[in-house]
Amino acid sequence: MHTVIPPHMQHHTEEHFSSSALVTDIVIGMSDGLTVPFALAAGLSGAVSDTHLVVVAGLAEIVAGSIAMGLGGFLAGKTEVDHYNAELKREAWEVVNLPEREREEVRQIFEEMGISPSTQALVVDELVRDDKKWIDFMMRFELGLEKPDPKRASKSALNIGISYIVGGLVPLMPYFFVSSPIAGLYYSAAITVVCLFIFGYFKAKVTGQAPLKGAFSVMLIGSVAAAAAFGIAKLISG
Amino acid sequence: MHTVIPPHMQHHTEEHFSSSALVTDIVIGMSDGLTVPFALAAGLSGAVSDTHLVVVAGLAEIVAGSIAMGLGGFLAGKTEVDHYNAELKREAWEVVNLPEREREEVRQIFEEMGISPSTQALVVDELVRDDKKWIDFMMRFELGLEKPDPKRASKSALNIGISYIVGGLVPLMPYFFVSSPIAGLYYSAAITVVCLFIFGYFKAKVTGQAPLKGAFSVMLIGSVAAAAAFGIAKLISG
Repeated sequence: MHTVIPPHMQHHTEEHFSSSALVTDIVIGMSDGLTVPFALAAGLSGAVSDTHLVVVAGLAEIVAGSIAMGLGGFLAGKTEVDHYNAELKREAWEVVNLPEREREEVRQIFEEMGISPSTQALVVDELVRDDKKWIDFMMRFELGLEKPDPKRASKSALNIGISYIVGGLVPLMPYFFVSSPIAGLYYSAAITVVCLFIFGYFKAKVTGQAPLKGAFSVMLIGSVAAAAAFGIAKLISG
Repeated sequence: MHTVIPPHMQHHTEEHFSSSALVTDIVIGMSDGLTVPFALAAGLSGAVSDTHLVVVAGLAEIVAGSIAMGLGGFLAGKTEVDHYNAELKREAWEVVNLPEREREEVRQIFEEMGISPSTQALVVDELVRDDKKWIDFMMRFELGLEKPDPKRASKSALNIGISYIVGGLVPLMPYFFVSSPIAGLYYSAAITVVCLFIFGYFKAKVTGQAPLKGAFSVMLIGSVAAAAAFGIAKLISG
């Protein structure tokens, strides 16, 4: 679960944000969907004798995970829109009510760039002429905030949730067809490791990494998680 | 699982990044840790008669989830450092080999700010005098990339993984002490809902939301996920 995409990491996709937003959602949902239900099913396969239990637990996990991830993503998106609007309001207020302080903040940004004092004054004068451009500048360059798409949150939640379900059904599928959990695990591991590799390859392509390195990373995470879950379940179930 | 923190959402913490990095990691790990093992245990409680199975599945999930999340976070962090360094190298190359094109890109950024052509020329001239400042400018203002901390990836992985384990043990704990899964579920739900509320309150405080709204959001996600997992497990096992 739990594809943690750090704040910084996605910056480079912002330029083509609308076209790659769906792809990003699918990557987020499917990374976790392929990994965690796989590991859980693997863990249970070493501890129970009934395939049915693996299926029940796996489906419960997929439902729980897709809701937590989808709904979590939805609320995070809403929060982001709220945050942007609150900051926008504050900057707009400051530009009107504390113009001297805001001017000084703009000047400091250009000072950091290594611009000479006389040119700093010139640029600041031109920039503050138009309140809208001034506020835009503060939002982007002082706060580093891009305007979020308000409709994105709900679309994103659905995309991530569905991708999680699709990803999660892959490792679970074999258990529907065999009677022994260990037999299920063999098929599940074979199919999932291949899918993790293919998925990792495309994920890396999309996020601009080296594809083979990405493919092995994703495969490694899934395999380590599954092996550890298998080990701990075996240990405590005796 | 699966706290999706969108790229944009964490921008506002970057100012105080080093002090809040640990808190951010704990929030990411614990959000998912409290939610998914809780929902999985709740789901299984409606489907199995043996508490031991809930414990085995819950621990397998915690192990799988903490590894997927921790290791996933570690590799994402490494990727980010690699990405930054690759872009830095490219910008440095471009500044030396395609100076005219890079100058034009700088000029366009100031044009977008509403700066007059004569001042644009002045600022560009001053900025490109120092190659280091020029490259810095391109990294921050053209690509929107901040220099990542190379040690952060491994620290972050550990923090997130441990937080996930701590969070996940909360809903699972009651099942160690009772013999009926349904009794375990009562205690687990009572304890976890309270913890989700308290955790949501602090998470909101840390991320600058309204605390009560955040507390209810987090509680809602956990409860909906648990109820849905319970429902689906009951449905297919019954």
